Amino acid sequence: MRRIGALIFPGFELLDLFGPMEMFGMLTDEYSLELIAETAGPIRGNPGLDTVASRALEDAGDYDLLFVPGGPGTRALVDHAPVLDWLAEQGSRAEYVLSVCTGSALLARAGLLDGCKATTNKAAFAWVASQGPQVNWVKQARWVEDGKFLTSSGVSAGMDMTLAAIALMHGRALAEEVAVSCEYTWHDDSTADPFAALHGLA
Amino acid sequence: MRRIGALIFPGFELLDLFGPMEMFGMLTDEYSLELIAETAGPIRGNPGLDTVASRALEDAGDYDLLFVPGGPGTRALVDHAPVLDWLAEQGSRAEYVLSVCTGSALLARAGLLDGCKATTNKAAFAWVASQGPQVNWVKQARWVEDGKFLTSSGVSAGMDMTLAAIALMHGRALAEEVAVSCEYTWHDDSTADPFAALHGLA
Repeated sequence: MRRIGALIFPGFELLDLFGPMEMFGMLTDEYSLELIAETAGPIRGNPGLDTVASRALEDAGDYDLLFVPGGPGTRALVDHAPVLDWLAEQGSRAEYVLSVCTGSALLARAGLLDGCKATTNKAAFAWVASQGPQVNWVKQARWVEDGKFLTSSGVSAGMDMTLAAIALMHGRALAEEVAVSCEYTWHDDSTADPFAALHGLA
Repeated sequence: MRRIGALIFPGFELLDLFGPMEMFGMLTDEYSLELIAETAGPIRGNPGLDTVASRALEDAGDYDLLFVPGGPGTRALVDHAPVLDWLAEQGSRAEYVLSVCTGSALLARAGLLDGCKATTNKAAFAWVASQGPQVNWVKQARWVEDGKFLTSSGVSAGMDMTLAAIALMHGRALAEEVAVSCEYTWHDDSTADPFAALHGLA
């Protein structure tokens, strides 16, 4: 059983979080889910709706898998030491670290991705890349795996990455079972990124 | 601007709700989002995590678009008059009524779908169909549109239906823009349902 700790913050992107949480959470024997925020309680996502963080950063446990969604709220956090310090500490200990969309900007600012390959939302590529000059940013990828770090492109790409992470930990058959249960057509080629070209990145 | 009222309840399926809310919510000039539950406050979804209902049924307004997710929690609601009565009333007034997965069992029990074509999650098809003997249940469909009712198959199919609903209200170009913003590959053929065959329904 792996403990997943997902960081949320005002302006996190709803589907960045809930697509992956649906998929991991379905495997109740393999994963537990916990939402963590700077302050426990309701956190307003983007575009709206409140989700409850059950733990504050200072009360958070240790997690086997650290998960960071993106969203417009990342812009306010790239200089925010309490969150970056927590990510740096948790990220260095975790077995796996996953981000969706602009969540990789936070991992980069926490210093976790230096020397690693990573990706992000193609619509925000230049800004995210500027947050981590020592990161090898991949312009065209649905998601990128480098050691324990898996970073995905925008929003829905997080679900494709999550299925890849499940395959990595438990084999492809279980990932395919989850996809079928969600009636989700898995885009299982991490290099197939039709959205990069729309933003002049391919 | 259309007001969307989404019903949530203990054991609603996370991605049934948050995929569509992400897509509608992105169009901030066109839609507002509100979550309603029998009691306002945190509601535990499936598989876990708490989402805040901002209104109780008795305080809910009128909605242009009524949205009902599925999930294991629907099983406890098919005989629960307070919720069914509210759905019947709101559903008869709304311009559009949408459900995902087993959410159509609740619409059926509220009497809204009698004489209509509708669909549901293929893994729960027999149970859902038994909730609405006067409904023309479609065994193989990603979603079904019949007048103001749009009902989708399981989980991810809700996103495909949502894009179809946006196209219906605002034209295909805007739906495609939303799909691209979510980096989502829209399965835009409502009759293409590869999951029906896996459950002996095609």
